[in-house]
Amino acid sequence: MEKFKVTPWEVTGVVNYEKLVKEFGLNLLTDELLKRIEKQTKELHLFLRRKIFFAHRDLDWLLNEYEKGNKFYLYTGRGPSGYTHLGHLIPWIFTKWLQDKFDAKLYFQITDDEKFLFKEKLSLEEVRAFAYDNILDLIALGFDQKKTFVFLNTEYSKTLYPQAIKVAKHITFSTARAVFGFKNESNIGQIFFTSMQAVPAFLESIKEKKNVPCLIPLAVDQDPHFRVARDVLPKLGFYKPAVIHSKFLPGLEKGGKMSTSEPETCIFTTDSQEEAEKKIMNAFTGGGATIKEQKEKGGKPEICSVYQYYYFLFESDDKKLKEIFENCKAGKRICGECKAELAKRVKEFLIEHQKKREKAKNLVEKFILRD
Amino acid sequence: MEKFKVTPWEVTGVVNYEKLVKEFGLNLLTDELLKRIEKQTKELHLFLRRKIFFAHRDLDWLLNEYEKGNKFYLYTGRGPSGYTHLGHLIPWIFTKWLQDKFDAKLYFQITDDEKFLFKEKLSLEEVRAFAYDNILDLIALGFDQKKTFVFLNTEYSKTLYPQAIKVAKHITFSTARAVFGFKNESNIGQIFFTSMQAVPAFLESIKEKKNVPCLIPLAVDQDPHFRVARDVLPKLGFYKPAVIHSKFLPGLEKGGKMSTSEPETCIFTTDSQEEAEKKIMNAFTGGGATIKEQKEKGGKPEICSVYQYYYFLFESDDKKLKEIFENCKAGKRICGECKAELAKRVKEFLIEHQKKREKAKNLVEKFILRD
Repeated sequence: MEKFKVTPWEVTGVVNYEKLVKEFGLNLLTDELLKRIEKQTKELHLFLRRKIFFAHRDLDWLLNEYEKGNKFYLYTGRGPSGYTHLGHLIPWIFTKWLQDKFDAKLYFQITDDEKFLFKEKLSLEEVRAFAYDNILDLIALGFDQKKTFVFLNTEYSKTLYPQAIKVAKHITFSTARAVFGFKNESNIGQIFFTSMQAVPAFLESIKEKKNVPCLIPLAVDQDPHFRVARDVLPKLGFYKPAVIHSKFLPGLEKGGKMSTSEPETCIFTTDSQEEAEKKIMNAFTGGGATIKEQKEKGGKPEICSVYQYYYFLFESDDKKLKEIFENCKAGKRICGECKAELAKRVKEFLIEHQKKREKAKNLVEKFILRD
Repeated sequence: MEKFKVTPWEVTGVVNYEKLVKEFGLNLLTDELLKRIEKQTKELHLFLRRKIFFAHRDLDWLLNEYEKGNKFYLYTGRGPSGYTHLGHLIPWIFTKWLQDKFDAKLYFQITDDEKFLFKEKLSLEEVRAFAYDNILDLIALGFDQKKTFVFLNTEYSKTLYPQAIKVAKHITFSTARAVFGFKNESNIGQIFFTSMQAVPAFLESIKEKKNVPCLIPLAVDQDPHFRVARDVLPKLGFYKPAVIHSKFLPGLEKGGKMSTSEPETCIFTTDSQEEAEKKIMNAFTGGGATIKEQKEKGGKPEICSVYQYYYFLFESDDKKLKEIFENCKAGKRICGECKAELAKRVKEFLIEHQKKREKAKNLVEKFILRD
């Protein structure tokens, strides 16, 4: 089995999610839980149907509370180390769906401090510029401006820092090192940082002066922060936040997560149509060495990055997705056509999304929280 | 030789300042430097004449800059873990003198975050209450309200935190552990904290958008923070701050620094006259076992805590101080009288100071900086 690594700051290799669930101590999202969600939402988002959101912590408790009339709020975020790519959108799209279905407030934390502290070469000014670009993507997804509160840590630190030290007082260096793998060379801002990421998990409780349940949709690499936060928050008198975890949208090359540091493997929301098309046409597939071979032996959609894009984002109809899979297997669907079709859909998405990004420029101030 | 320990969070034993200068890598305040100061100030504060401020870093450089017309600002502070005692006033009184003589701005940092993080049992609310009480003592000393900027870290964190992470990025865990002695059980807020204490050493440069020299008068236990900060600041484009270090006002018992955790050894500015008198009358002295013995053999002012109070604060006339010393030595000054005289002076001070503290209550808002 190939080696893989999943930390909040590094994801490499082909992730074995089964193994990760055990390592991180997560619970798989069961069909029973999905039914309980569907009972409230009347339908299941494709990310749930397809188990793209695949694991959780305390989601059953959260639903118990909800059924008792104890509404929850949402918390997710972004580490602004570059432009937004399609992989980043997965938790945001799902969070938007949850906001709509559960009429929930959302705190969206932009960890400019984190990216500054962890990226040797990025200045705070550069990180903040990415933050304000990334916000456009968030707004473009259609979040409710009355219920969505976006903040950069460095612009909201009068609120966050005094709460963060309350968390920090309960986290020893031993714990932080064990969970995050800090070394002697780690800087002292990195070591402190998880305290800042914990705060939005109880911020609504502070504001409302009563305990409010919190649900955190996130990509699974961020889980370690909340493993720690869930230990600390009850000591401060708050509920443990519930968490729901997504898989990573794979890169367009073989294996791994889309990575900003390898731009050829990612489609950015700011890519031109030509760039996006080129990346897709160069993508790694599960096709045969020749068209002839592929027609005879069939393709391997299970290892194909192009198929994953249909699966995650670009074919919402489960039946049609199945057809794509089966036609590929049967050698009836050839990579060139399949890529061209995906490129068409991605370009359509980009055209629409980029229009919305333009409009979002006038809305930023309506979403931003500052001290 | 008795063992002693001096860290920003613990001072125990009888401090050997000569040894400390070597350990910390400080420079002694030379007569030549004192002359250069006197050239500017026309007189020397008794804390300088008596070498109560005894060591420095880069004070010669600071005076060079000043002589060239490059004025400096002052930075000192307070960790609000309890009420103010007379020992705390030493650096403040001296800072006030420097402000007057050099017409200098002062940033006064109240590290409520630090005391919350380092004192197991103190809540943030308790620490803040002490902070606002301590501010009254500061104002009572007569600082210029147009040039003095006081802030609590948790109330000024929108300004401080984004700067603190710039410092933190240059401090490894190794360095922090070596300088401050952190352990595996240290909490991650403690490890980060020195970054917050570094910020006021370049805050004026940030505000003025040009490099402004900074002088930090402090009790010598706080030096380690600035040993680290002085390494980092040039990497951010700022001057290294100059530092001038004071000795500790001894406690009224044998040896050590006044300590809030041993209230019988300290005179608090909030003590009643009766409390203060009682503490002084119970103080450790260098007297003989009996009056007869003392008259015959003389006392030992060099080990007497009562003498130290005259030396530090309650006899500004060098001639009269010498008389006290010599009369004690000669057996002409008996402990009972000597304590009674000190008690009288301390009570007079407290009456005046407490009046000023009352008046200060209306002035707090004029001194406070908040985001």
